[in-house]
Amino acid sequence: MHKSGLVGFIIDCNTEDLDAAAQFWSEALRLPLEEGGGDPGYRKLAKGPGGLNIEVQQVDHPSRVHLDIESTDVEAEVQRLERLGAKPVSQVRDWVVMEAPTGQRFCVVPARGD
Amino acid sequence: MHKSGLVGFIIDCNTEDLDAAAQFWSEALRLPLEEGGGDPGYRKLAKGPGGLNIEVQQVDHPSRVHLDIESTDVEAEVQRLERLGAKPVSQVRDWVVMEAPTGQRFCVVPARGD
Repeated sequence: MHKSGLVGFIIDCNTEDLDAAAQFWSEALRLPLEEGGGDPGYRKLAKGPGGLNIEVQQVDHPSRVHLDIESTDVEAEVQRLERLGAKPVSQVRDWVVMEAPTGQRFCVVPARGD
Repeated sequence: MHKSGLVGFIIDCNTEDLDAAAQFWSEALRLPLEEGGGDPGYRKLAKGPGGLNIEVQQVDHPSRVHLDIESTDVEAEVQRLERLGAKPVSQVRDWVVMEAPTGQRFCVVPARGD
Protein backbone atom coordinates (compact mmCIF):
# COMPACT_ATOMS: atom_id res chain seq x y z
CA MET A 1 0.00 0.00 0.00
CA HIS A 2 1.45 3.34 -1.00
CA LYS A 3 1.62 6.27 1.40
CA SER A 4 0.63 9.83 0.70
CA GLY A 5 -0.08 13.09 2.46
CA LEU A 6 0.14 16.85 2.36
CA VAL A 7 3.77 17.85 1.86
CA GLY A 8 3.37 21.58 1.36
CA PHE A 9 2.11 24.22 -0.98
CA ILE A 10 3.35 26.31 -3.86
CA ILE A 11 2.57 30.00 -4.14
CA ASP A 12 2.04 30.43 -7.89
CA CYS A 13 2.83 33.99 -8.92
CA ASN A 14 2.02 35.49 -12.29
CA THR A 15 4.82 38.00 -12.15
CA GLU A 16 7.82 39.19 -14.13
CA ASP A 17 9.79 39.62 -10.92
CA LEU A 18 9.97 36.30 -9.14
CA ASP A 19 12.54 37.58 -6.64
CA ALA A 20 10.27 40.41 -5.54
CA ALA A 21 7.36 37.98 -5.19
CA ALA A 22 9.51 35.57 -3.17
CA GLN A 23 10.72 38.44 -0.99
CA PHE A 24 7.14 39.49 -0.25
CA TRP A 25 6.02 35.99 0.73
CA SER A 26 9.17 35.37 2.74
CA GLU A 27 8.56 38.50 4.80
CA ALA A 28 4.80 38.03 4.98
CA LEU A 29 5.13 34.47 6.32
CA ARG A 30 8.32 35.27 8.27
CA LEU A 31 10.10 32.36 6.61
CA PRO A 32 13.59 33.15 5.27
CA LEU A 33 14.40 32.42 1.65
CA GLU A 34 16.67 29.44 1.16
CA GLU A 35 19.88 30.13 -0.66
CA GLY A 36 20.59 29.41 -4.31
CA GLY A 37 20.47 26.36 -6.51
CA GLY A 38 17.39 24.61 -7.69
CA ASP A 39 15.02 25.37 -10.53
CA PRO A 40 15.21 28.96 -11.84
CA GLY A 41 11.42 29.20 -11.85
CA TYR A 42 11.16 28.58 -8.12
CA ARG A 43 12.27 30.20 -4.87
CA LYS A 44 12.19 28.06 -1.77
CA LEU A 45 11.27 29.35 1.66
CA ALA A 46 12.55 27.85 4.91
CA LYS A 47 10.45 24.89 6.01
CA GLY A 48 7.07 25.89 7.39
CA PRO A 49 5.27 24.39 10.39
CA GLY A 50 5.80 20.63 10.60
CA GLY A 51 8.48 20.71 7.91
CA LEU A 52 6.03 21.93 5.29
CA ASN A 53 7.61 22.58 1.89
CA ILE A 54 6.77 26.10 0.70
CA GLU A 55 7.94 27.51 -2.63
CA VAL A 56 7.17 30.57 -4.70
CA GLN A 57 6.80 29.73 -8.38
CA GLN A 58 6.71 31.94 -11.45
CA VAL A 59 3.70 31.02 -13.61
CA ASP A 60 1.88 32.16 -16.74
CA HIS A 61 -1.61 31.35 -15.41
CA PRO A 62 -3.37 33.53 -12.83
CA SER A 63 -1.72 33.70 -9.41
CA ARG A 64 -2.93 31.23 -6.83
CA VAL A 65 -1.83 28.85 -4.09
CA HIS A 66 -1.76 25.15 -4.86
CA LEU A 67 -1.34 22.22 -2.51
CA ASP A 68 1.19 19.44 -3.05
CA ILE A 69 0.41 15.87 -2.05
CA GLU A 70 3.44 13.60 -1.91
CA SER A 71 3.26 9.90 -2.48
CA THR A 72 5.55 6.88 -2.45
CA ASP A 73 3.72 5.85 -5.66
CA VAL A 74 2.50 8.77 -7.76
CA GLU A 75 0.55 6.63 -10.23
CA ALA A 76 -1.30 4.75 -7.47
CA GLU A 77 -2.04 8.02 -5.70
CA VAL A 78 -3.40 9.61 -8.89
CA GLN A 79 -5.68 6.59 -9.31
CA ARG A 80 -6.85 6.87 -5.68
CA LEU A 81 -7.60 10.57 -6.15
CA GLU A 82 -9.44 9.85 -9.42
CA ARG A 83 -11.68 7.43 -7.53
CA LEU A 84 -12.40 10.29 -5.09
CA GLY A 85 -13.47 12.47 -8.02
CA ALA A 86 -10.34 14.40 -8.99
CA LYS A 87 -9.19 14.63 -12.61
CA PRO A 88 -5.63 14.43 -13.92
CA VAL A 89 -4.77 17.56 -15.90
CA SER A 90 -1.19 17.08 -17.01
CA GLN A 91 2.09 15.37 -16.25
CA VAL A 92 5.03 17.69 -15.57
CA ARG A 93 8.39 16.01 -15.14
CA ASP A 94 7.83 13.50 -12.31
CA TRP A 95 4.64 14.99 -10.88
CA VAL A 96 1.00 15.09 -11.94
CA VAL A 97 -1.25 18.15 -11.92
CA MET A 98 -4.81 17.30 -10.85
CA GLU A 99 -8.07 19.18 -10.44
CA ALA A 100 -10.33 18.66 -7.43
CA PRO A 101 -14.10 18.21 -7.90
CA THR A 102 -14.38 21.77 -6.54
CA GLY A 103 -11.96 23.08 -9.17
CA GLN A 104 -8.72 23.73 -7.31
CA ARG A 105 -5.57 22.52 -9.02
CA PHE A 106 -3.10 20.56 -6.92
CA CYS A 107 -0.07 18.36 -7.59
CA VAL A 108 0.88 14.79 -6.74
CA VAL A 109 4.63 14.67 -6.31
CA PRO A 110 7.03 11.81 -5.56
CA ALA A 111 7.93 11.44 -1.88
CA ARG A 112 11.51 12.68 -1.55
CA GLY A 113 12.18 10.74 1.63
CA ASP A 114 13.68 13.70 3.46
CA MET B 1 6.26 43.93 19.06
CA HIS B 2 3.45 41.74 17.78
CA LYS B 3 4.03 38.21 16.59
CA SER B 4 2.67 36.65 13.43
CA GLY B 5 3.09 33.63 11.23
CA LEU B 6 1.46 31.10 8.98
CA VAL B 7 -1.30 29.34 10.93
CA GLY B 8 -2.87 27.32 8.14
CA PHE B 9 -4.94 27.53 5.01
CA ILE B 10 -8.55 27.48 3.98
CA ILE B 11 -9.76 25.50 0.98
CA ASP B 12 -12.42 27.79 -0.50
CA CYS B 13 -14.98 25.76 -2.39
CA ASN B 14 -17.61 27.19 -4.70
CA THR B 15 -20.04 24.35 -4.18
CA GLU B 16 -23.61 23.67 -3.16
CA ASP B 17 -22.46 20.58 -1.26
CA LEU B 18 -19.96 21.59 1.38
CA ASP B 19 -20.02 18.15 3.01
CA ALA B 20 -19.05 16.44 -0.22
CA ALA B 21 -16.25 18.96 -0.76
CA ALA B 22 -15.01 18.47 2.81
CA GLN B 23 -15.17 14.70 2.37
CA PHE B 24 -13.05 14.90 -0.79
CA TRP B 25 -10.37 17.06 0.82
CA SER B 26 -10.36 14.98 3.99
CA GLU B 27 -9.72 11.81 2.00
CA ALA B 28 -7.33 13.47 -0.46
CA LEU B 29 -5.15 14.86 2.34
CA ARG B 30 -5.77 11.87 4.63
CA LEU B 31 -6.84 14.18 7.44
CA PRO B 32 -10.07 13.16 9.21
CA LEU B 33 -12.92 15.63 9.49
CA GLU B 34 -13.38 17.07 12.95
CA GLU B 35 -16.77 16.51 14.50
CA GLY B 36 -19.59 19.05 14.71
CA GLY B 37 -19.92 22.54 16.08
CA GLY B 38 -18.44 25.64 14.61
CA ASP B 39 -19.56 27.84 11.76
CA PRO B 40 -22.02 26.19 9.33
CA GLY B 41 -20.03 27.52 6.36
CA TYR B 42 -16.87 25.66 7.37
CA ARG B 43 -15.72 22.09 7.89
CA LYS B 44 -12.55 21.59 9.88
CA LEU B 45 -10.00 18.89 9.13
CA ALA B 46 -7.72 17.34 11.74
CA LYS B 47 -4.62 19.43 12.30
CA GLY B 48 -2.12 19.18 9.46
CA PRO B 49 1.68 18.98 9.74
CA GLY B 50 3.00 21.16 12.58
CA GLY B 51 -0.51 21.78 13.92
CA LEU B 52 -1.57 23.57 10.75
CA ASN B 53 -5.22 24.68 10.77
CA ILE B 54 -6.99 23.41 7.65
CA GLU B 55 -10.63 24.13 6.88
CA VAL B 56 -12.93 23.69 3.91
CA GLN B 57 -15.12 26.73 3.36
CA GLN B 58 -18.22 27.23 1.21
CA VAL B 59 -17.80 30.38 -0.89
CA ASP B 60 -19.55 32.31 -3.66
CA HIS B 61 -16.35 33.35 -5.43
CA PRO B 62 -14.29 30.93 -7.56
CA SER B 63 -12.72 28.02 -5.69
CA ARG B 64 -9.20 28.50 -4.45
CA VAL B 65 -6.85 27.92 -1.52
CA HIS B 66 -6.02 30.87 0.71
CA LEU B 67 -3.39 31.17 3.40
CA ASP B 68 -4.12 32.39 6.92
CA ILE B 69 -1.57 34.45 8.83
CA GLU B 70 -2.26 34.70 12.54
CA SER B 71 -1.15 37.62 14.65
CA THR B 72 -1.23 38.73 18.25
CA ASP B 73 -2.21 42.15 16.85
CA VAL B 74 -4.22 42.01 13.63
CA GLU B 75 -4.14 45.76 13.02
CA ALA B 76 -0.37 45.98 13.44
CA GLU B 77 0.10 42.96 11.19
CA VAL B 78 -2.13 44.45 8.49
CA GLN B 79 -0.01 47.61 8.62
CA ARG B 80 3.19 45.57 8.38
CA LEU B 81 1.84 43.70 5.36
CA GLU B 82 0.72 46.95 3.74
CA ARG B 83 4.28 48.23 4.04
CA LEU B 84 5.38 45.05 2.23
CA GLY B 85 2.96 45.86 -0.60
CA ALA B 86 -0.24 43.97 0.29
CA LYS B 87 -3.63 45.69 0.20
CA PRO B 88 -6.48 45.28 2.67
CA VAL B 89 -9.64 44.12 0.89
CA SER B 90 -12.25 43.76 3.61
CA GLN B 91 -12.83 43.16 7.28
CA VAL B 92 -14.83 40.02 8.14
CA ARG B 93 -15.71 39.58 11.80
CA ASP B 94 -12.33 39.70 13.58
CA TRP B 95 -10.10 39.01 10.59
CA VAL B 96 -8.92 41.03 7.60
CA VAL B 97 -8.85 39.83 4.00
CA MET B 98 -5.78 41.09 2.13
CA GLU B 99 -4.39 40.83 -1.38
CA ALA B 100 -0.72 40.14 -2.08
CA PRO B 101 1.18 42.20 -4.68
CA THR B 102 0.97 39.05 -6.85
CA GLY B 103 -2.81 38.92 -6.47
CA GLN B 104 -3.46 36.04 -4.07
CA ARG B 105 -6.01 36.73 -1.36
CA PHE B 106 -5.07 35.76 2.19
CA CYS B 107 -6.37 36.49 5.68
CA VAL B 108 -4.89 37.96 8.83
CA VAL B 109 -6.58 36.33 11.79
CA PRO B 110 -6.25 36.85 15.54
CA ALA B 111 -3.89 34.39 17.25
CA ARG B 112 -6.10 31.98 19.18
CA GLY B 113 -3.36 30.99 21.59
CA ASP B 114 -4.00 27.26 21.23
